[in-house]
Amino acid sequence: MKILDANGQPDLRKTARRGRAARRSVVPDIKSPRARKIPAYTLLNENALKAIEDQADWILQNIGVEFCSDKTALDLFAAAGATVVGEKVTFEPGLARQLCATAPAKFELHARDPANTVLLGGDKVVLMPGYGSPFVSDLEKGRRYATLTDFENFVKLSYSTPWLHHSGGTVCEPTDVPVNKRHLDMVLAHLTLSSKPFMGGVTSLERAQDGIDMARLVFGAAFMEDHAVMQGNINVNSPLIFDDTMSGALRVYAAANQCVCVSPSIFAGAMGPLSPAAVAAQTLAEGMVGIALAQLVRPGCPVVFGSFHSTMNLKSGALAFGSPEANLVTMALSQLGRRLGVPVRSGGGQISASNAPDGQAMQDSTGAMWATLLSGAHQVWHAAGWLEGGLVMSYEKFIMDLDHCGAMMTLLQGFETDEEAFGRDAYHETGPGQNFLSTQHTLRHFATANFQPDIPEAGPYETWVENGSHTADQRATARWKRMLDDYKAPPMAEGIYKALTDFVATRKAAMPDAWY
Amino acid sequence: MKILDANGQPDLRKTARRGRAARRSVVPDIKSPRARKIPAYTLLNENALKAIEDQADWILQNIGVEFCSDKTALDLFAAAGATVVGEKVTFEPGLARQLCATAPAKFELHARDPANTVLLGGDKVVLMPGYGSPFVSDLEKGRRYATLTDFENFVKLSYSTPWLHHSGGTVCEPTDVPVNKRHLDMVLAHLTLSSKPFMGGVTSLERAQDGIDMARLVFGAAFMEDHAVMQGNINVNSPLIFDDTMSGALRVYAAANQCVCVSPSIFAGAMGPLSPAAVAAQTLAEGMVGIALAQLVRPGCPVVFGSFHSTMNLKSGALAFGSPEANLVTMALSQLGRRLGVPVRSGGGQISASNAPDGQAMQDSTGAMWATLLSGAHQVWHAAGWLEGGLVMSYEKFIMDLDHCGAMMTLLQGFETDEEAFGRDAYHETGPGQNFLSTQHTLRHFATANFQPDIPEAGPYETWVENGSHTADQRATARWKRMLDDYKAPPMAEGIYKALTDFVATRKAAMPDAWY
Repeated sequence: MKILDANGQPDLRKTARRGRAARRSVVPDIKSPRARKIPAYTLLNENALKAIEDQADWILQNIGVEFCSDKTALDLFAAAGATVVGEKVTFEPGLARQLCATAPAKFELHARDPANTVLLGGDKVVLMPGYGSPFVSDLEKGRRYATLTDFENFVKLSYSTPWLHHSGGTVCEPTDVPVNKRHLDMVLAHLTLSSKPFMGGVTSLERAQDGIDMARLVFGAAFMEDHAVMQGNINVNSPLIFDDTMSGALRVYAAANQCVCVSPSIFAGAMGPLSPAAVAAQTLAEGMVGIALAQLVRPGCPVVFGSFHSTMNLKSGALAFGSPEANLVTMALSQLGRRLGVPVRSGGGQISASNAPDGQAMQDSTGAMWATLLSGAHQVWHAAGWLEGGLVMSYEKFIMDLDHCGAMMTLLQGFETDEEAFGRDAYHETGPGQNFLSTQHTLRHFATANFQPDIPEAGPYETWVENGSHTADQRATARWKRMLDDYKAPPMAEGIYKALTDFVATRKAAMPDAWY
Repeated sequence: MKILDANGQPDLRKTARRGRAARRSVVPDIKSPRARKIPAYTLLNENALKAIEDQADWILQNIGVEFCSDKTALDLFAAAGATVVGEKVTFEPGLARQLCATAPAKFELHARDPANTVLLGGDKVVLMPGYGSPFVSDLEKGRRYATLTDFENFVKLSYSTPWLHHSGGTVCEPTDVPVNKRHLDMVLAHLTLSSKPFMGGVTSLERAQDGIDMARLVFGAAFMEDHAVMQGNINVNSPLIFDDTMSGALRVYAAANQCVCVSPSIFAGAMGPLSPAAVAAQTLAEGMVGIALAQLVRPGCPVVFGSFHSTMNLKSGALAFGSPEANLVTMALSQLGRRLGVPVRSGGGQISASNAPDGQAMQDSTGAMWATLLSGAHQVWHAAGWLEGGLVMSYEKFIMDLDHCGAMMTLLQGFETDEEAFGRDAYHETGPGQNFLSTQHTLRHFATANFQPDIPEAGPYETWVENGSHTADQRATARWKRMLDDYKAPPMAEGIYKALTDFVATRKAAMPDAWY
């Protein structure tokens, strides 16, 4: 795989055209189908969409959003025509949406291997692993705190599968590394162990800047002025608050023209009213405000309208990822985000509150993934590995989820209705009551006809029992182990690698360890 | 529950209006939401639909369908303008569709409890249990041949849940009863242990007639002249053959004005070409021919356009229920059936080739159910319990599937976008950064806000481990046991009950046991 040119710089000439026109170009699909060819599902009609949009405007006009200790943000909003009183910002109806108008409808997120560059927006679908779990589990070693080795393993696994198109961000928390230095090891892993797009740190302005500086060592500062190569996940402190860490990190990414993903985080009934309509409206309101801030910092900077939401069992307080009400919100937000004119990161993905990669885990995950992908979301976090409401990245569920990612990407291709698909010659060869297995049509197509999961088939019951009655999760263990054994790092010029590791060493040496 | 009137006859006065107008009336939803309020997903555009319909016409014109040893059927087709040569029938393009035109677009399937009467067609959704499994399994007794007791158990369980609207047919094979007498015990169980709609036997003309005669003892022969109270599942011997057992049973149901469900059965690559487009076209062709025959026997008799299909691993020969290609066919057939103007029984449902109620089982089942219900199918077989490609009805998977049936029926309700849904008063009570749990809006709605599964929540990890780390299937065992313990048979007038049991005794006495 040729990745770097003679000077150790990424060979991005083919895609290095500048400006909006370049952003709209379509990256060729090399490793896997990345575009949907079937229509997005339309859950809500115009009246319902308008009602939700009006409610978002009502929230922004009557309740407002607070920016804590971020005078820069408050000044930007005031200058743009919003009303700022203390730390609270309110907006006349329509203003927040108007401030989002400079955000690109789609853009390329460049990878250091240009073949892995993705387009966010339009008819493209970008899947990535789970995000943020403090624990990992596998069937042999059980559940335990995640370490940097686990982090690196999931980066390697995500790099090794055609069904994830993005290396993710905090795929799990490397809890054996001091909190103030984790971002350095995480970005280093994404940049060196993978050549897919990635997310940088956001837990402080300085950490966000470190990640951007590291990316500049690989992609070049000049290239990054005009091209997004990384994303930062800006969680809203819902309801209706951006804390200064998040708004500060947002401004760092926007100023660097890197992608800001704004993710309101609403558990229905706790961080917002409990109805799907209310959660959708508040997510839209909070999302528009974050996107507006990014555009005020740097008009035209790439953004993603994200979300993270769940229902709760309002009697027990337990979160219920993958519930029907949450799936409805997921579908609604895909529509609302497309109307806003920006790429949509779905609050769905393959998510579950289950403690094991069991039937419940896959029922929840599969339903949420259908809601996500049918409704036309562009970017999907938590597409693999996520268990226990995000507390755990499971090695086995990761593999099971990958199979379903592949199945769904296959489904999104739809099917042909041309002459060859109908196989009329096969009917002339056979006829009523006869078998089609040996027809020329079957022989022409059987090798490539159907999606093939990676987890071995269970096989006939008797054979399965003889082999130990292994459930799907048990059959997945060998797969992730083999993927790690077979993993080969994408090549990187020695000079770049040294610059990165020097940067990490210098930054680490400059700070005492801190665990907050 | 008041079911029978003073004479022991069903109290069907409210719904006993005659003719087509009565069939179009909408049954009130009492026990559960039965109507979709969200739009059906549109997979295929007009060009693709037309291409598939043209291919179906091509098959019927150029290849034809064979009716084995059924001169009555052949004569009916010849008289209707089809070309009959030997046992093969071919149709000019458009003729088969034209012969289907007298079939009702929707109709009521009457239950002996009128509250359980369902409407097939329109925006209604009717879910039913698995069909045809020779084995059952549960986590305590393991996998074993199904018995009449198991059959009765699944009838009781289906009656006890609001998420199944139909008692099914051969929910499992009562293998301890001679083959030639099973239909009597099965119909007796459906009629006495449940008061939901059901399916009768089809394995011979006489067995089909026995079931109809038993239903007449409950509903009255006169009532059944104008009202459908049962269905018969007519499997096509795909490719393109109706054997005389199936076409004969079809004619018995149609002549009695009871519902004929025509189900082509195609494993892609074996009983038809391997592409989704070809499977959809052949299913449509075979389905139209069966429906046409029913309409020739009795114009206007109620029919359902069914299907049963799967892809195979074309290297191993294993069936792959729930595959993306099969899900695409499922979605396409919902559209094609609605265009044909008849209710659609989906080839999806909660199906899997897995040997256990594990993650794979629920991944397959959940995806297939989404394809089924999003695409607008009206009747769903195999909505609960089905495992091992249909070889097994699993008690635990039945319970897990019911939870997902409930979730999907909830999802199909969509959500409100009215003033109360948006909860503006809650924002005035709280504000940015504050909790919504104690707002009046939450208090008004928390008790009914979200769908609540029946399987107990796993709970926090530590508690879950203390309680034995039970996976979802393990937590389901107690539920089906309690449902059986709590089961109460719907009341039936003593005279009717005696007439039914006398009928069964007389018919059994008239035949020696036969195991074929």
